[in-house]
Amino acid sequence: MLADNENERYMGKAIYQAKEAFFNDEVPVGAIVVYEKKIIGIGRNKTISSNSPIAHAEMIAIQEASNYLKNYRLIDCDLYVTLEPCIMCMGAIFHARIKRLFFGAWDTKTGACGGKINLAGNKSLNHHCHVNGGILEEESKDLLQEFFKVKRIKKNRD
Amino acid sequence: MLADNENERYMGKAIYQAKEAFFNDEVPVGAIVVYEKKIIGIGRNKTISSNSPIAHAEMIAIQEASNYLKNYRLIDCDLYVTLEPCIMCMGAIFHARIKRLFFGAWDTKTGACGGKINLAGNKSLNHHCHVNGGILEEESKDLLQEFFKVKRIKKNRD
Repeated sequence: MLADNENERYMGKAIYQAKEAFFNDEVPVGAIVVYEKKIIGIGRNKTISSNSPIAHAEMIAIQEASNYLKNYRLIDCDLYVTLEPCIMCMGAIFHARIKRLFFGAWDTKTGACGGKINLAGNKSLNHHCHVNGGILEEESKDLLQEFFKVKRIKKNRD
Repeated sequence: MLADNENERYMGKAIYQAKEAFFNDEVPVGAIVVYEKKIIGIGRNKTISSNSPIAHAEMIAIQEASNYLKNYRLIDCDLYVTLEPCIMCMGAIFHARIKRLFFGAWDTKTGACGGKINLAGNKSLNHHCHVNGGILEEESKDLLQEFFKVKRIKKNRD
């Protein structure tokens, strides 16, 4: 297991991506893929700007890492993401054989690691990965809350 | 509800894509997205050739349809796929707000409509779509079985 400060350092990189999403008017979620202590995949939520229901931060980071390794399996790779993954992203994490998943804030609406539904802990599924939630949780949560607060203010003004 | 022969006609288009995948040495799964009786998204499994754990037929068809509609929501769109969708694709189907899902063969290993796990029927999730499985089931199933049979023969020869 990595030292807490190393996990927080990687999560900091994912939070940087989430902030980039925020400034681009996208739900602020960021993700990175780490292989042998090197960041080989970076993603931030781009669903609106790219007209894509699948352009979640995790999906983009996983695709970038797959391109880098020239392999559809990300053996021995870790994924850091600022928000608990949804069903779709959890499926992609299983397909990619991500070794360890670290996430920030819990998502009680769509989280698939127990926040809403627990696919990560579903023993009947073929694949699993080590899951560690709540890394720099407050920072990611505050960013999301601020985003939706600004959205509401804008909506009320219009 | 569409007439059976219309559903079968659309599924035939998806099977054509699955055959293309077969001839490209990919697990033979194909998908199309239909909007107002027009095919606006086409996909076939490309996970190996594109080094991508997320390049399932459904994901590619959904992305193409989103590009066409310039929207991350595929309101009033139907998806036809030759194999029961996995967790990842089911998540994407929910995100895209696909209206009706039609699939061919059931998948007892990774299917997310009851074959392995039932996300389509999970009332606690926010989004749902009408699901109709078993359309031209035998044809898609035969194609998959033939693919894995050939794979085994090749493996034993090497």
